[in-house]
Amino acid sequence: MRHLLDTRTLSRDDAILILDTAEDMAATQQREMKKLPTLRGKSVVNLFFEDSTRTRISFEAAAKRLSADVINFSAKGSSVSKGESLKDTAQTLQAIGADGVIIRHPASGAASRLASSGWIDAGVLNAGDGTHEHPTQALLDAFTMRRRLHGDASRGQSLDGVSVVIVGDIAHSRVARSNLWLLNALGAKVSLVAPETLLPFGVREWPVTLYHSLDDALATERPDVVMMLRIQTERMHAAFFPNEREYARNWGLDDARLARLTERAIVMHPGPMNRGLEISSGAADSPRSTVLEQVANGVSVRMACLFLLLSGERPQSERTEG
Amino acid sequence: MRHLLDTRTLSRDDAILILDTAEDMAATQQREMKKLPTLRGKSVVNLFFEDSTRTRISFEAAAKRLSADVINFSAKGSSVSKGESLKDTAQTLQAIGADGVIIRHPASGAASRLASSGWIDAGVLNAGDGTHEHPTQALLDAFTMRRRLHGDASRGQSLDGVSVVIVGDIAHSRVARSNLWLLNALGAKVSLVAPETLLPFGVREWPVTLYHSLDDALATERPDVVMMLRIQTERMHAAFFPNEREYARNWGLDDARLARLTERAIVMHPGPMNRGLEISSGAADSPRSTVLEQVANGVSVRMACLFLLLSGERPQSERTEG
Amino acid sequence: MRHLLDTRTLSRDDAILILDTAEDMAATQQREMKKLPTLRGKSVVNLFFEDSTRTRISFEAAAKRLSADVINFSAKGSSVSKGESLKDTAQTLQAIGADGVIIRHPASGAASRLASSGWIDAGVLNAGDGTHEHPTQALLDAFTMRRRLHGDASRGQSLDGVSVVIVGDIAHSRVARSNLWLLNALGAKVSLVAPETLLPFGVREWPVTLYHSLDDALATERPDVVMMLRIQTERMHAAFFPNEREYARNWGLDDARLARLTERAIVMHPGPMNRGLEISSGAADSPRSTVLEQVANGVSVRMACLFLLLSGERPQSERTEG
Repeated sequence: MRHLLDTRTLSRDDAILILDTAEDMAATQQREMKKLPTLRGKSVVNLFFEDSTRTRISFEAAAKRLSADVINFSAKGSSVSKGESLKDTAQTLQAIGADGVIIRHPASGAASRLASSGWIDAGVLNAGDGTHEHPTQALLDAFTMRRRLHGDASRGQSLDGVSVVIVGDIAHSRVARSNLWLLNALGAKVSLVAPETLLPFGVREWPVTLYHSLDDALATERPDVVMMLRIQTERMHAAFFPNEREYARNWGLDDARLARLTERAIVMHPGPMNRGLEISSGAADSPRSTVLEQVANGVSVRMACLFLLLSGERPQSERTEG
Repeated sequence: MRHLLDTRTLSRDDAILILDTAEDMAATQQREMKKLPTLRGKSVVNLFFEDSTRTRISFEAAAKRLSADVINFSAKGSSVSKGESLKDTAQTLQAIGADGVIIRHPASGAASRLASSGWIDAGVLNAGDGTHEHPTQALLDAFTMRRRLHGDASRGQSLDGVSVVIVGDIAHSRVARSNLWLLNALGAKVSLVAPETLLPFGVREWPVTLYHSLDDALATERPDVVMMLRIQTERMHAAFFPNEREYARNWGLDDARLARLTERAIVMHPGPMNRGLEISSGAADSPRSTVLEQVANGVSVRMACLFLLLSGERPQSERTEG
Repeated sequence: MRHLLDTRTLSRDDAILILDTAEDMAATQQREMKKLPTLRGKSVVNLFFEDSTRTRISFEAAAKRLSADVINFSAKGSSVSKGESLKDTAQTLQAIGADGVIIRHPASGAASRLASSGWIDAGVLNAGDGTHEHPTQALLDAFTMRRRLHGDASRGQSLDGVSVVIVGDIAHSRVARSNLWLLNALGAKVSLVAPETLLPFGVREWPVTLYHSLDDALATERPDVVMMLRIQTERMHAAFFPNEREYARNWGLDDARLARLTERAIVMHPGPMNRGLEISSGAADSPRSTVLEQVANGVSVRMACLFLLLSGERPQSERTEG
């Protein structure tokens, strides 16, 4: 792999390679609690045009555990126009010899533009671009599902036949998009649940089943995984948005809905949660909830991505093609 | 020691252990000027909900000299409510495998809440919480007193019989609180000097002598240590606050008062100083002043605390109890 | 060398030593792509009172490649008055044992004041102080010129006889000042081109030739190097400033002027460029342009400066004098 820009173009084999590598990373961490020397002498830049301390420190911790040097570059609030800034910045990163650039940007396509610009040689890792994609979030979600469903026998497994229901503001969610493409590649069946006004244009061409009613989706799909998206409450004043009470009643995972899930079903959330809105405290704190595992798995998955992009190792699929 | 949350519950033995360990750290630094490998592979997070560059870089330097990885997490200005934020943040820190968390927070009790929450396994180090405590400041103050009073024979010493006068806005000062509990444990006699309106509720139950007049305190106590607190000049517009001229005249350490101190008395200030307000330039720059030593000793004391909390070593008192 | 505060007082021998050391750094980087252990255990502070992410990360990357620990200290927006702040801050840096301080400050003379204050023992490296100097920018510019003109035979070379034309807002440019002194020491002939209102007071005592017309300068000097300065467009509303169209027409390096340059002439710019204003896209992207090399060379030059200041090695000129 040269870059990690999206999950839409990620092959099933590469996806499984990343997940298996993340298993190795998790195992190493548990065994030794030490830094790996793998990326010693490499430098990784956290290039954040949007605030996201949680994502930034997850990547920073992952890079440091692999002994890379990390340079934080917070470009938020810069007065230069976005276009100039990205190019100027890229050239600086090239000049300082960055081996990897982790980019978070409010514009969809920014990561891809950086990777294909010719401005830099560094591997580019998309940490969220507009409403487009957030691939490491989807990979850590898939990693979490696989571990919950297959336990110690996870290595090499896909998610064939797993039923996943994703609920919330699909229109504005890069997490939903990255998950749906990755889950599709891994063989899972994806259903989306949202009011019509929160479904994106073009959703009917996606390989998903659509529901407006969460109750219908749960009854029909009997999902193995229910993934609740975070509601941006500041959007709730928009005309097309249901109000909070209406949202919680129709699309929130409350205790009654939790009780109707199948025995092995798990509840996921990318965090931070709005308790009482998209998820009840009962659901958030139940043994089905994987919220904390997701955050912890994020470091292993990001270590795996950095390793595969920057260590000189190439994934199986490229090696056999080459 | 598992956490360092306050000095109020710190035993005399543990306090002396920290001060002696800080002597070791200072000696090592002076001898080799090199990094110690002690905390290699450990990660320490600077979790600052309030700006304090000076304290942050003192901890950062201490952690790096012990070869720990440092991740800075500035949570100031975050729009999430404080309660949610602390829990969400703690879970992220747990997820990235933080071994130590240095927390600065505007709410009294935040450090203790983080340590007792069950959200994280990391050792928690209070770097100032509201008006509650700032234990490493008190420890570096005690370290500085001990060195000035006992010199090379400091190791193992307490502060038995030392008379300390603390002057200023006691009501809002976590530095005063941490000092008074620690000095008490180490056997010093503490006097507080402030106008009535700047004494906290409940001060009459503290193990201290109270004065409203600095001249009375100096004459009666003949202190070994005079500790001037920093006045927050932005508070001076409040009705209960004396104005600047009144404050300097009644509670400032001016040249005349400096001249009346006993021969061995020292003058302390946590910095940065308001020269001409709580302290005259004559006092600030006199050989009695320990202001610069305090800042320098801060790194040794913080190295000691990080070492004792994170290296796996346990202080004598716990080992003998165990 | 103890500090690097300006180029005005830098000797020709020391300048060549820095450039030659930068050649060593560039060669090592190219050969091994690894960190050098040279500054292991040293700590370097980036003390930035002005935003400049590009300069900051160039220094940060340079320091980390030499294995130094880097602490970032962004003092921008601090409410303390500048005078107090610099002293208080310096004392903190001294206390944490900083070996090197890289300072960027809006006040001319701040770096020199820090170095001569007695507040710190650290080596001080000026990363831009007001309109005074920005020595590493001039050094990377000279390094870039030498490489373009002498190629692999650069080591030991001066810039004797090289003709350099510097164009733009000389009055407010620390880059112009640092370049002119350094180029003078290295034997180059410097010409300055600007409208009279953008020339600084006292310029007629500098060892330069002055032009108001860029066309005249190019025709008369037939320069080897044309260095375009960045125009601060926010200044263009000032009465003494030409408007954008007038500026581009009279002082911009457009395609017609580019075509008239001699065969070996190069075009330099410290970046980021205002395309269409002080430089056309044709000039910026032509093979004569060294803009990207300048940024890349910046890391090698800054490694050299940090090495010479902090590794304990002393430059030849001091050793022979001593």
